[in-house]
Amino acid sequence: MRFVKGHGTGNDFVVLVDPERRLDLTPDLVRRICDRRRGIGGDGVLRAVLSATDPEGAVMSDAARWFMDYRNADGSLAEMCGNGLRCVAVFLRDMGVIAGDTIDVGTRSGVRRTELLPDGRVRVDMGEPNFTKAAIPMRGPAWEHFLEEPLDLGNGVSFRASAVSMGNPHLVLFLDEDPDRYHVGHIGAALERDERFPEGTNVEFAKVAEDGIVARVWERGSGETMACGSGACAIAVAANEAGLVGRRTSVRFPGGTLEVERLETGGVSLTGPAAQVFETTVDVAALLEARAG
Amino acid sequence: MRFVKGHGTGNDFVVLVDPERRLDLTPDLVRRICDRRRGIGGDGVLRAVLSATDPEGAVMSDAARWFMDYRNADGSLAEMCGNGLRCVAVFLRDMGVIAGDTIDVGTRSGVRRTELLPDGRVRVDMGEPNFTKAAIPMRGPAWEHFLEEPLDLGNGVSFRASAVSMGNPHLVLFLDEDPDRYHVGHIGAALERDERFPEGTNVEFAKVAEDGIVARVWERGSGETMACGSGACAIAVAANEAGLVGRRTSVRFPGGTLEVERLETGGVSLTGPAAQVFETTVDVAALLEARAG
Repeated sequence: MRFVKGHGTGNDFVVLVDPERRLDLTPDLVRRICDRRRGIGGDGVLRAVLSATDPEGAVMSDAARWFMDYRNADGSLAEMCGNGLRCVAVFLRDMGVIAGDTIDVGTRSGVRRTELLPDGRVRVDMGEPNFTKAAIPMRGPAWEHFLEEPLDLGNGVSFRASAVSMGNPHLVLFLDEDPDRYHVGHIGAALERDERFPEGTNVEFAKVAEDGIVARVWERGSGETMACGSGACAIAVAANEAGLVGRRTSVRFPGGTLEVERLETGGVSLTGPAAQVFETTVDVAALLEARAG
Repeated sequence: MRFVKGHGTGNDFVVLVDPERRLDLTPDLVRRICDRRRGIGGDGVLRAVLSATDPEGAVMSDAARWFMDYRNADGSLAEMCGNGLRCVAVFLRDMGVIAGDTIDVGTRSGVRRTELLPDGRVRVDMGEPNFTKAAIPMRGPAWEHFLEEPLDLGNGVSFRASAVSMGNPHLVLFLDEDPDRYHVGHIGAALERDERFPEGTNVEFAKVAEDGIVARVWERGSGETMACGSGACAIAVAANEAGLVGRRTSVRFPGGTLEVERLETGGVSLTGPAAQVFETTVDVAALLEARAG
């Protein structure tokens, strides 16, 4: 099976094209592919399949010929991934399976338009943000005024916070100091599993600076990553709602900078780089048989 | 440039054959190759060069046609690597550049014989252990009776310990409990930089069990790894010197099990697996130009 390792702002993926959806992409196989020592290594697997062949993609096969079947490194399903969608768009173009600079790709969050810009970056339609409780299942009375009532970690520490769905759930913490001054791993892991978020959540640590927003991100199912596309959108939208930035802002993650714009239509666009690192062919059966040692 | 990702007991390497030593393998390039998100990813780079073309390998070119130029993931030079030597032997055989089951490979610690066993494992000659102060530069009065005087960490914690050179320096800590009960990261990092070891040291955490030795390892320049070949030898030799095991023992690391034998000749042999994960071709110039984002 042919695999490509790609990354968008340091968020890295193993990308494969499997038009007929022939590969049995079990959680075990995903974990082995993403293993950084014994496999190819990545934050997740992005499989491009023809929408018509996918149980979830079939309904959108008229609008999008290709569907992005995305899995986290732990083998779980994920709805959407902005960094990943950019990689998939570049990969489909480089493979020659699509022509032109605009590609509509199906995702578990619906059809998303991608545009390959002349400067090599990719702009992707990230859909509309959603602040309703239906979109971000959450328990507890603090929901209605989430931005006003600080989110209490239960140990005397609290954050001004906002919950936003970008198809997947995000909890944006607004910080007074640089994100590097916080225990992102401890706080992120605790909030991902917090009982107030019954379906789990991504957690963003954001500081509004003069030249944009500085951030780190904890991804549900993956742990801290170098950057997160939907997280950048969640941060920018929440900061805009709070009056901290305008409709257009940049979000600087450790892995690189993403640009986010809230469109007049209500949608959000995300612009950033996507790079192919290497491609290789791996015997999937051998990968599955490999044991410790 | 053609690269192979391989691993021996989970200790993973990027292996390349560069007969004429044409690639300018700078520390920066090594770090970029070993980058697990933007590069190929590995604990180090193993370059096989014709001994005659290498400044350090030339003196052994009569005894060993190939020389293993090994670098740690941080770009620093390393003398020897048992897990890496197994990978290099398998790679040279698979590339068809050597025939037969026995290959003599030059390393910065001298010529080492490797044997490809019928069961797929590889036995490598790891040279002779050395307990002298000249081989393991060390400061402090505790040296002569190192095993008798516990190594004090300066915070009330002390270990029964032995210093052994296997071409590279090792400090073996003998534990009363399973290695997982110790802060391997904290203790390893502290001892690697301890002023008593002016050239730094690898640190092994070993517990002698009934069916062999259970261990974890902190490698100088790489941090904790899944396994370490020369570390396994250091552990087995030190435990044998201390009367805790016989001349032949197994060392079980998180990444897999290695077998060590003290030979009648005074040398040590190490037997373990070596697997190729994938191969790929990467544009080195592009790798060097890639920037954050």
